[in-house]
Amino acid sequence: MDIATLIGIVGGLGLIVGAILLGGNLFAFVDAPSLVVVVGGTMAATLVMFPLKTVISSFKVAMKAFLAKDPNPQELVEQVVSLADKARKESLVALEKVEIDDPFLKKGVRLVADGSSQAQVQSILESEINFLKQRHRRGQNVFKGLGGAAPAFGMIGTLVGLVNMLQTLDEPEAIGPAMAVALLTTFYGAVMANLVFLPVARKLEERSNDEQLVLNVAMEGVLSILNGEHPHLVREKLLSFLPPASREGEG
Amino acid sequence: MDIATLIGIVGGLGLIVGAILLGGNLFAFVDAPSLVVVVGGTMAATLVMFPLKTVISSFKVAMKAFLAKDPNPQELVEQVVSLADKARKESLVALEKVEIDDPFLKKGVRLVADGSSQAQVQSILESEINFLKQRHRRGQNVFKGLGGAAPAFGMIGTLVGLVNMLQTLDEPEAIGPAMAVALLTTFYGAVMANLVFLPVARKLEERSNDEQLVLNVAMEGVLSILNGEHPHLVREKLLSFLPPASREGEG
Amino acid sequence: MDIATLIGIVGGLGLIVGAILLGGNLFAFVDAPSLVVVVGGTMAATLVMFPLKTVISSFKVAMKAFLAKDPNPQELVEQVVSLADKARKESLVALEKVEIDDPFLKKGVRLVADGSSQAQVQSILESEINFLKQRHRRGQNVFKGLGGAAPAFGMIGTLVGLVNMLQTLDEPEAIGPAMAVALLTTFYGAVMANLVFLPVARKLEERSNDEQLVLNVAMEGVLSILNGEHPHLVREKLLSFLPPASREGEG
Amino acid sequence: MDIATLIGIVGGLGLIVGAILLGGNLFAFVDAPSLVVVVGGTMAATLVMFPLKTVISSFKVAMKAFLAKDPNPQELVEQVVSLADKARKESLVALEKVEIDDPFLKKGVRLVADGSSQAQVQSILESEINFLKQRHRRGQNVFKGLGGAAPAFGMIGTLVGLVNMLQTLDEPEAIGPAMAVALLTTFYGAVMANLVFLPVARKLEERSNDEQLVLNVAMEGVLSILNGEHPHLVREKLLSFLPPASREGEG
Amino acid sequence: MDIATLIGIVGGLGLIVGAILLGGNLFAFVDAPSLVVVVGGTMAATLVMFPLKTVISSFKVAMKAFLAKDPNPQELVEQVVSLADKARKESLVALEKVEIDDPFLKKGVRLVADGSSQAQVQSILESEINFLKQRHRRGQNVFKGLGGAAPAFGMIGTLVGLVNMLQTLDEPEAIGPAMAVALLTTFYGAVMANLVFLPVARKLEERSNDEQLVLNVAMEGVLSILNGEHPHLVREKLLSFLPPASREGEG
Repeated sequence: MDIATLIGIVGGLGLIVGAILLGGNLFAFVDAPSLVVVVGGTMAATLVMFPLKTVISSFKVAMKAFLAKDPNPQELVEQVVSLADKARKESLVALEKVEIDDPFLKKGVRLVADGSSQAQVQSILESEINFLKQRHRRGQNVFKGLGGAAPAFGMIGTLVGLVNMLQTLDEPEAIGPAMAVALLTTFYGAVMANLVFLPVARKLEERSNDEQLVLNVAMEGVLSILNGEHPHLVREKLLSFLPPASREGEG
Repeated sequence: MDIATLIGIVGGLGLIVGAILLGGNLFAFVDAPSLVVVVGGTMAATLVMFPLKTVISSFKVAMKAFLAKDPNPQELVEQVVSLADKARKESLVALEKVEIDDPFLKKGVRLVADGSSQAQVQSILESEINFLKQRHRRGQNVFKGLGGAAPAFGMIGTLVGLVNMLQTLDEPEAIGPAMAVALLTTFYGAVMANLVFLPVARKLEERSNDEQLVLNVAMEGVLSILNGEHPHLVREKLLSFLPPASREGEG
Repeated sequence: MDIATLIGIVGGLGLIVGAILLGGNLFAFVDAPSLVVVVGGTMAATLVMFPLKTVISSFKVAMKAFLAKDPNPQELVEQVVSLADKARKESLVALEKVEIDDPFLKKGVRLVADGSSQAQVQSILESEINFLKQRHRRGQNVFKGLGGAAPAFGMIGTLVGLVNMLQTLDEPEAIGPAMAVALLTTFYGAVMANLVFLPVARKLEERSNDEQLVLNVAMEGVLSILNGEHPHLVREKLLSFLPPASREGEG
Repeated sequence: MDIATLIGIVGGLGLIVGAILLGGNLFAFVDAPSLVVVVGGTMAATLVMFPLKTVISSFKVAMKAFLAKDPNPQELVEQVVSLADKARKESLVALEKVEIDDPFLKKGVRLVADGSSQAQVQSILESEINFLKQRHRRGQNVFKGLGGAAPAFGMIGTLVGLVNMLQTLDEPEAIGPAMAVALLTTFYGAVMANLVFLPVARKLEERSNDEQLVLNVAMEGVLSILNGEHPHLVREKLLSFLPPASREGEG
Repeated sequence: MDIATLIGIVGGLGLIVGAILLGGNLFAFVDAPSLVVVVGGTMAATLVMFPLKTVISSFKVAMKAFLAKDPNPQELVEQVVSLADKARKESLVALEKVEIDDPFLKKGVRLVADGSSQAQVQSILESEINFLKQRHRRGQNVFKGLGGAAPAFGMIGTLVGLVNMLQTLDEPEAIGPAMAVALLTTFYGAVMANLVFLPVARKLEERSNDEQLVLNVAMEGVLSILNGEHPHLVREKLLSFLPPASREGEG
């Protein structure tokens, strides 16, 4: 699991709660109607922005991104090398019986074992990578949309509070608390956008880049197997795709 | 119909009205002149931005996008496969008599039946897709323009209200309500932009992408028919263009 | 003439004047020094941004765009078709004597009549289209520059007014009107940018796209004539460049 | 010299000073510490942004751009035509003895006279143009950086002033002037960014485009000479690179 | 070391402290809880944005960029020229024994000495440059993320302070100091973003461009050696990649 995301969100909220407690009391910052306006308004705007199924699937993508374990490119390289070895010692057809967990690598190896041409394999695998990229981008767009809508509805809520307050200036002792409540929606919107939505959109982008790199390595590996390249050469070539940090661990 | 758009706009307005009622009364938020300034000013700026016919056609595009049923790529794939089957069993010319509802697919099939070359078919269909894309982009631009003008005229209205109010500071009891009215235009502009115009522009973009995908699948299908590819291969190829979610439903 | 631009600007100003009259009097919104600071400052910044001749020519481009009649692509297509007809019945050289109003089409036809090669004709006409595009873009940039400078100088004027006002807080009855005057520059800057400069920049972009489309159709037509294509085919090809709306009017 | 830049900056400052004098006195707007914070802070941020030598060379580039006379493309075209004439009447080697002021044209002609191949000449001259472009872009980036830092440090200065003022609310007569001084840094930052830094960055971009056009014309001319094209054709070709306004002056 | 960065940050802080001392006392600007909210909140948001190892490695990249000495392209050119000389006088294999400090040049020369083909050498070195570029871009993105989060958490802290203050309007003498403290988080966020995070992101970009230029020169040099080009020609070619300023120092 991506523990940093959890630490960041929980830690950030903790700091804000701490700051509140130092200077006042937490109850002054909890106002159910304000929360409903910001959260509800943000969700309403998001429903206008995206088809419902895109919103739902983007939350699934986000969940999966945080719960899935980090892709391990070294392990993948070793698996491809052992497949290349088997293909050279036995035959391409022999790869059909190998057990492969990764669905993308599995698909590529099966295509090779079925005797597809290099152009066919490359075109099908590239199209898979491309759809993954677009699916991830849609997920990021939903979170960016949430991150843009939250401060806007925070401001709308504050305007509602201010207009209500200005009608009742004849009760001076009510002005302060009324204005405090009016500011709460801006506060909620700012926290939601800057601690959750926008940062999560950013992390989805980072993880998508990582995942694409791994799929590209797998595709290059499958094509090398198809071309009957020497396992030694395959390993060297695939490792050159990884950043130095990932490579150093290798023998 | 795209029900999410309606739910989003109506739900968002409902939440805002609810928030108003909790803290004050709704009449304080209805001010006809303020509404006229923001709506009218936004429309005036839009007339300066775009030719009149672009504005009108963009509303038509938006209506059509919300009322048209979701494109169904699976159905399209099956139709193309059955056409490919007919073309192989009979001849390309036989396609001329097939009834086809979709105007884009119909145009492509007729070109094939007329004996056009692959280059000609591809160039004409790509040019159609390109014009659809540009037409959609113009529609999105109009809504983005509205979404930029609404908050600007909200601010202009508030400035008018503030300048008027500042002339009459000698009536302290009038300051509050005058300022409340001044803030209403900002409120209207923010709601219009963030609940309607900008989110609708976003959804038009999403729908345009979906529609382009379907047209591209149709074009690839027509070209496969022209090349006399095996119906089985045609289905597999076209399905690889669809995202996994759409594919899963297939047998 | 592009009547929508005029309607938009005049109508928008009318709405703002109406809103002013409903809540106060118009004289409170007219302050010559404030107007001089915003208009003058915006012009000064524009002179720093662009060479003087670019500023002047951008206003000419804008005038021409608003006064010139809409390009009529159908008429152009028919003219090209009749030229193609003449070229086939007589000869390319015969085109030299035809009267052509449009300077771009005239230039292209003369090049063809002079016996230039396809590559030469295409390169010269593309270079013409390219310069038009750049000239238009410079015009748009000047209006975007004005649209950015106007609110900035509006804010600068308001800061001047606020600092002046804060020196004289000992005359409470003068605070309101002084602050009202200070806000006027922000108001002027916002109206100028959002009702005139930025929307005009947008419309210049739209018109530039329309004009480029027509020139591209003319260029394709000239090249078709040079290649001796059949007039019927030429019409079909050129019409496929026009959006469906323009095509429908055709027989 | 680029007189418009000077007129713009001096005229803009004059307008602002005039607006100040109309409503107050100039001394209220001069505060040495505020000026030091904004100017110094902006320079400090710029030193963090760019290597020192980039900052210095960007000011040199700006100076040169304002003092250098306008490039004269017609004169250049005539010079290239006379060189092409000489090359045809005598020989390419004869060009070696011609006196050429422009260093770029001189370099190109010398390469031709030395018997370099077309590919070599083009690659070397394009690389020169490319470095000019990058050098200019760096200069623009420094001014854009200054234009972003000035308002930020204006706001930081105002925050310092506000916090200081809020500590001494018990002296009501001091609030106004203290707040006036606090606003001065925002005022300085806004004027610096919107009248000087951002507009200068824009003009550098315009001039860079002009200069690149002239160098491209010179390069095309040198290549035409190398190919032994007829002087008449060379003139026509090079003139087609110039915008119509520059061409009209030609006979 | 990049001394300008240090001068800029220390100098900028000095100016701000000076401005504070002129108008008040420094203790009013030090508030530990405010600092914790802004610094902590910014770090929390950054942890949500980027994987932990990216954040850590970006700080390492930044450190290395500021401590590493300026790349010296002239020295590199001379080293490549002497290698080209040795390769021509002896053989490519003889390069294997030469001591080379720069790891990138070393890798390239070893590949050449091992008898790799030009395509292989180019592909491996380009992939190295590409990873460097991506690693640098990630570092810049982390600092841009920090620069966006700091003002946001400054505003969140100010909202907390304002809401707390508005609850206690019945103690008028406490309003000023409470509001002063509330503004401190905005102040901290603005200084952190505009004096440190955003400018550092900019400088990392500048340094990355410089470093890429040097690596490209080294790659071109290695390829020239592989092609057996004359050392004289190699020097001329590589120097043409450097900006004129760097070249002038050369004999």
